[in-house]
Amino acid sequence: MSDPSAIHYIPGDAIREQIEAVFTAWGVNAEQAATAAEALSDADMHGVDSHGIGLVPMYDQRRGEGRINVSAQPKVVREKGAVALIDADKSLGHPVSVMAMQMACAKARKTGVALVGVRNSNHFGAAGYYSRLAAKEGVIGMAMTHAPGSAIVPTFGRDAVLGTNPIAFAAPGRANKPFALDMATSTVALNKVRNYARRGMPIPEGWAMDQNGQPTTDPDVGYKARRVAPVGGTRELGSHKGYGLAMMVEILCAVLTGAWAEPGQTDANGHPVKSPTQTGHFFLAIDPNLLRGGEEFGEDLDRMIDMLHATPPVDPGKPVLVAGDPEYATFAERSANGVPLPQSLLDEVREVVSRCNAPYLLG
Amino acid sequence: MSDPSAIHYIPGDAIREQIEAVFTAWGVNAEQAATAAEALSDADMHGVDSHGIGLVPMYDQRRGEGRINVSAQPKVVREKGAVALIDADKSLGHPVSVMAMQMACAKARKTGVALVGVRNSNHFGAAGYYSRLAAKEGVIGMAMTHAPGSAIVPTFGRDAVLGTNPIAFAAPGRANKPFALDMATSTVALNKVRNYARRGMPIPEGWAMDQNGQPTTDPDVGYKARRVAPVGGTRELGSHKGYGLAMMVEILCAVLTGAWAEPGQTDANGHPVKSPTQTGHFFLAIDPNLLRGGEEFGEDLDRMIDMLHATPPVDPGKPVLVAGDPEYATFAERSANGVPLPQSLLDEVREVVSRCNAPYLLG
Repeated sequence: MSDPSAIHYIPGDAIREQIEAVFTAWGVNAEQAATAAEALSDADMHGVDSHGIGLVPMYDQRRGEGRINVSAQPKVVREKGAVALIDADKSLGHPVSVMAMQMACAKARKTGVALVGVRNSNHFGAAGYYSRLAAKEGVIGMAMTHAPGSAIVPTFGRDAVLGTNPIAFAAPGRANKPFALDMATSTVALNKVRNYARRGMPIPEGWAMDQNGQPTTDPDVGYKARRVAPVGGTRELGSHKGYGLAMMVEILCAVLTGAWAEPGQTDANGHPVKSPTQTGHFFLAIDPNLLRGGEEFGEDLDRMIDMLHATPPVDPGKPVLVAGDPEYATFAERSANGVPLPQSLLDEVREVVSRCNAPYLLG
Repeated sequence: MSDPSAIHYIPGDAIREQIEAVFTAWGVNAEQAATAAEALSDADMHGVDSHGIGLVPMYDQRRGEGRINVSAQPKVVREKGAVALIDADKSLGHPVSVMAMQMACAKARKTGVALVGVRNSNHFGAAGYYSRLAAKEGVIGMAMTHAPGSAIVPTFGRDAVLGTNPIAFAAPGRANKPFALDMATSTVALNKVRNYARRGMPIPEGWAMDQNGQPTTDPDVGYKARRVAPVGGTRELGSHKGYGLAMMVEILCAVLTGAWAEPGQTDANGHPVKSPTQTGHFFLAIDPNLLRGGEEFGEDLDRMIDMLHATPPVDPGKPVLVAGDPEYATFAERSANGVPLPQSLLDEVREVVSRCNAPYLLG
């Protein structure tokens, strides 16, 4: 057998085609499969390795459980003025999210601001993909999703009751690439805690808690307890702010769309109501040209980004960046060299492929 | 002389009337004076002591410098669809912000979501006042402002280049009071660093930096350097997230409204262009009834808030709260007992009052 940690460099196009082939083999229609594959391979290309092809085995499991509806037809169920609500029909989260963000952008061109909510959806990959999609069209975009799996422990609390509830925001410059923020409202992802455990390294205080809700520096304890802190880390450093933001995301994605359910609540079949197929998303688009004239917005944003890039760093070897810079640098590097995927992931993808009789396209 | 730290308990109504009398004596029209006094005394009543009557001496100074226009007439300069832009004419920040948020709410009832930007404004007090204003009308409200005084040091940076750029978000429940988040995107306010210096206590690492941008636990060093960390505190704990949010606020409040200027940039008279009178604000309103039917939104929000209140705390004496709870508790307490104001502040207010021949109403 080959070494499971051996790294293979795979072109982004091959990753996209592989994902598309799998989704098509599942019965997802061509357009949805292509859209979802584009969103996922984009994450791989930008270095967001936790949200790319590595998710496909998890999606396969959810499909097997009947939680992802491969023949879903998302529908607009409400539309008025500058808002709309889409019922995803338990589809893959990515195509319905592209549909929602494009709809928000089109509305915003007329009304200046627009909001599209989505309910009955699934995991949508990386939130930043959708806000960047808006920015590419010259529109300010926000994308959020609640995450049904509990991870964040509220300030003063013992148990995890909120997902890592990410906020993505992108704004289009002219000369500069879009400002592109994509952040979980937790201090770190659970996966990062696990990576420290694998390397036998202690984690910083403020990342994770034990099962009693006490801060821990033991990554094994934190990962097993599945409890991470809100941004801020500790009460003293402002964890109530990250907790507040996580709740804001939950309100906009779940309460506003009708996707909210209590942890532990079950349906008539005994399945958790708070499940991946109860996922809600929030998309906001703002057309800056309705408030600023001509190219003023992009020009001022460029000046701001240039000012930040020029601000003196503490360490001359580590310049001041703006949100999006690391991902754009990774994109350039991977466009030249391919995406590094471990053999263990290729093996998992091969299993998914063989279960659905899709072609294997990764080498 | 009386002890400057002696505490006097003053009714909220007296504080409001005192502020109104001062603004009226300055020449501010009756409606604007009453609106601004209401916003400021509301902060005192809710325990946001840094954003109440204690700001009046600073406003007096800015008025003296010609930066606050007491006879300003804010005007809507652009309006289309669900957005509008207001030029504040260098007015006090509070009345124009109430006007903007009310306009956003009225628009949102028709279009579902609406955005009103403000430029050429001044300090608007506490951001949370405006988002709660929306929530009281049954509308989800967001309020942000950029803060021209630099305080936040970007991740990897040495110097402070962004203000404490707050984000406020409020959402209306039915049985519960509105969820009401109001947070600076810095870990702490500079004032809090100063309070530690006064008490001779070290500050936690992650609050402030020295003049070389290095983390410090010495409150004197941090306060003199005027450098605080973005939410997250350190790079390891996610300061790039707080920095990203501070930039998002700057983009929405300053770049989107035309209020942005580089630090150090001066006008023809040699005055800094990045000044209090160049302040921009951002107000967003979402009417949940256009996406959810009837009272569904408020009912689900109540269930979520109830769930969080019921989640087990680490310390039985410190229950899990949601954003707004501490301020509502302070409001109830101060409604009964008055607002504690130190003699030193009363003395400052008396000086402001005597300069403009307003009546002194605080005892």
